[in-house]
Amino acid sequence: MQADLICVGNELLTGLIENSNAGFLSRRLWAAGIEVRETAVVADDGEAIRSALNRALEHSEIIIFTGGLGPTEDDLTREAIASALGLSLNLDQKWLEKIEHFFNMRGIKMPENNRKQALIMEGASLLENRAGTAPGSILKWEGRLLVLLPGPPNELKPMFDDLVLPALKDFNRGSLSRLKTLKCCGIGESSLENKIKSLENWDLPPISYVARGYEVHLQLKGRGSAAEAAEAIEKGESKLRGLLGDCIYGSDDDTLAGKVAELLGEKGLTLALAESCSGGLLSSMITDIPGSSQFYRGGMVAYSGEAKTGSLGLARSLLEKEGQVSEPVAMAMAEAARANFKSDLAVGVTGIAGPDGGTAQKPVGLVYIALAGRCDCYCKKFNLGGGRLAVKERTVQMALDMIRREILNNYGQ
Amino acid sequence: MQADLICVGNELLTGLIENSNAGFLSRRLWAAGIEVRETAVVADDGEAIRSALNRALEHSEIIIFTGGLGPTEDDLTREAIASALGLSLNLDQKWLEKIEHFFNMRGIKMPENNRKQALIMEGASLLENRAGTAPGSILKWEGRLLVLLPGPPNELKPMFDDLVLPALKDFNRGSLSRLKTLKCCGIGESSLENKIKSLENWDLPPISYVARGYEVHLQLKGRGSAAEAAEAIEKGESKLRGLLGDCIYGSDDDTLAGKVAELLGEKGLTLALAESCSGGLLSSMITDIPGSSQFYRGGMVAYSGEAKTGSLGLARSLLEKEGQVSEPVAMAMAEAARANFKSDLAVGVTGIAGPDGGTAQKPVGLVYIALAGRCDCYCKKFNLGGGRLAVKERTVQMALDMIRREILNNYGQ
Repeated sequence: MQADLICVGNELLTGLIENSNAGFLSRRLWAAGIEVRETAVVADDGEAIRSALNRALEHSEIIIFTGGLGPTEDDLTREAIASALGLSLNLDQKWLEKIEHFFNMRGIKMPENNRKQALIMEGASLLENRAGTAPGSILKWEGRLLVLLPGPPNELKPMFDDLVLPALKDFNRGSLSRLKTLKCCGIGESSLENKIKSLENWDLPPISYVARGYEVHLQLKGRGSAAEAAEAIEKGESKLRGLLGDCIYGSDDDTLAGKVAELLGEKGLTLALAESCSGGLLSSMITDIPGSSQFYRGGMVAYSGEAKTGSLGLARSLLEKEGQVSEPVAMAMAEAARANFKSDLAVGVTGIAGPDGGTAQKPVGLVYIALAGRCDCYCKKFNLGGGRLAVKERTVQMALDMIRREILNNYGQ
Repeated sequence: MQADLICVGNELLTGLIENSNAGFLSRRLWAAGIEVRETAVVADDGEAIRSALNRALEHSEIIIFTGGLGPTEDDLTREAIASALGLSLNLDQKWLEKIEHFFNMRGIKMPENNRKQALIMEGASLLENRAGTAPGSILKWEGRLLVLLPGPPNELKPMFDDLVLPALKDFNRGSLSRLKTLKCCGIGESSLENKIKSLENWDLPPISYVARGYEVHLQLKGRGSAAEAAEAIEKGESKLRGLLGDCIYGSDDDTLAGKVAELLGEKGLTLALAESCSGGLLSSMITDIPGSSQFYRGGMVAYSGEAKTGSLGLARSLLEKEGQVSEPVAMAMAEAARANFKSDLAVGVTGIAGPDGGTAQKPVGLVYIALAGRCDCYCKKFNLGGGRLAVKERTVQMALDMIRREILNNYGQ
């Protein structure tokens, strides 16, 4: 069974917004055993939407639209589909009341243009939007399943997971395709490929390698009947896990920060941070995780020398002797964070994110990451490339991997 | 003049990789006065590529392909296009030597499958690839311009900027399209549309509205000759600026954080932060900006009550009396950050990001943001929705907008 995605929005075609919904939906559909045949990005234009729909109807059983469900005049998705299929649009009184309530809660009278967000195609079921005023909808039509989702990712994602996936599983009872992504950290793409190719009796399913900063993701594809696809992947995964050990931190939707949070929770450990060049990004990645207040004690962004001596309490003589970007300062930052916030583990980060501030001896991309734990404190030195944001991102990946390995190695059973 | 993008690659359709090339190319094409009509993402499959090509040929004068130019068996873009147009593929001897040299430099004999990367369609010109073995190519065919680009962004981007853009400008001597994005904060999408529609003598160019959390971006489209397009946009922009005043914080590539950084720099002001529910995201957004160490003194992520009393120095009695999520605590956090880091301005943020921790009186999404400045400290209360990450993101947008307005209002000439 195949799906087509049709993403509607001028903002996507002008490049104002990256189309993150397509990636999200593709991953989810594959995970549900449904192959994505094609993704189209089209303008907020009735004719463009209808033409993409007609094309998709020729090839795919499942057609998913994103965007164009807003209150403004250029939001045309539901109108275009209804006209293409010859369906009427009916007012959903209950949803209209929800929208009115949504505005009342904020002390505002509902603008008249929001009224059209309560229109729904005849025969379709409304999908509730818990984060906004645009409901989605789902329609069975001549053996196809059509799904309309709002564009904002924070509205689309929970709606898809909670309401669309169950309907898709019910609709798709045929053959399956399977993908499994194993996520690695702390090993380069080439080393990984060489290691995998060195396996004797090579009979793994096809693998794609994708490097994401300091992570490498391995994607295994299984085909055939549901049982065949699952068996090929299971076999491949077990071989790779045996070979790569804790270089694999997780799979599919796992994230490195999520994995660290899970480990901290399991062991009942707390964490504190003192960041310089990563500038709060490490803290923000940690606090993206629901429930992180259970283990995250707090952090300091010591972006200036004064912050390092003042709030963090480092000795001025240490900074003068070693320089702000140095191993002893990273270690002192980690230890100060651990003491100030009374945590089990603490990370100290100092480095030069660039574009300015580098010297011949201490170039842009030089980063020290220190980890203070129960027994000791140690520091790693990195030379990172790729510009300011890449340096921040890779610093965070390495720091998270250091915490992960520290817990696995020193806080085991 | 219109362009179609056709992005070829299974890794895009499985969602393993986000399609960042489409956004990049769209922005570049619009900046060159060329509208993007549609973007299609198709599989590494000859039939899929040919069918997307035929569709694009019906509508657009410019067709740009990305991906599928590698050495492996599933790289099919050039073969599929050649067969669709009835063109032969000829070996480019010079490029073959380059590929051989590329491998020799690494001490490896060129694998035989790389040979096909030197094949080029009859009539096409080869586009050199400075970062890899896959050359691009450009072909004038029956009044259309076809461009084939390699998939890896670090190969595609310089090739497009250095070799394709000049050819496009040469090819496109007709009418132009122009875009201008005006970025607003502190006003909702519907209110914005109503305000704009209330303008008498409505003669603005077409506007797209895009909501991004608490920002709304207005995209104006100008068409016609270069002069006509520019004039339409200029006229529209000036009317909108008159109407919306400092709700517009910037345009095109501006970001709210970047604008705040610019204002801080202009006025010689320094900033400090004390974050609870935003968890370091505000700090990270500020430190994404090159040169932020000039004005950013530092920040504290006081994620626990202990961090607020300990490192930040708030009175325990205050927390007990008012609760961690309260106006007095937000204000005390801002004032403590301002004093600790010796900054001109400081922001204190406390709230409930969720999904847990909410009560009937203090629900998830309740956020207090306080701003301490030269003269006074004030606090705003928000009820934010959309889930944990959306609460963080919106909190940061509102905090940045508060800083921006504070500087505009109280630190003027």
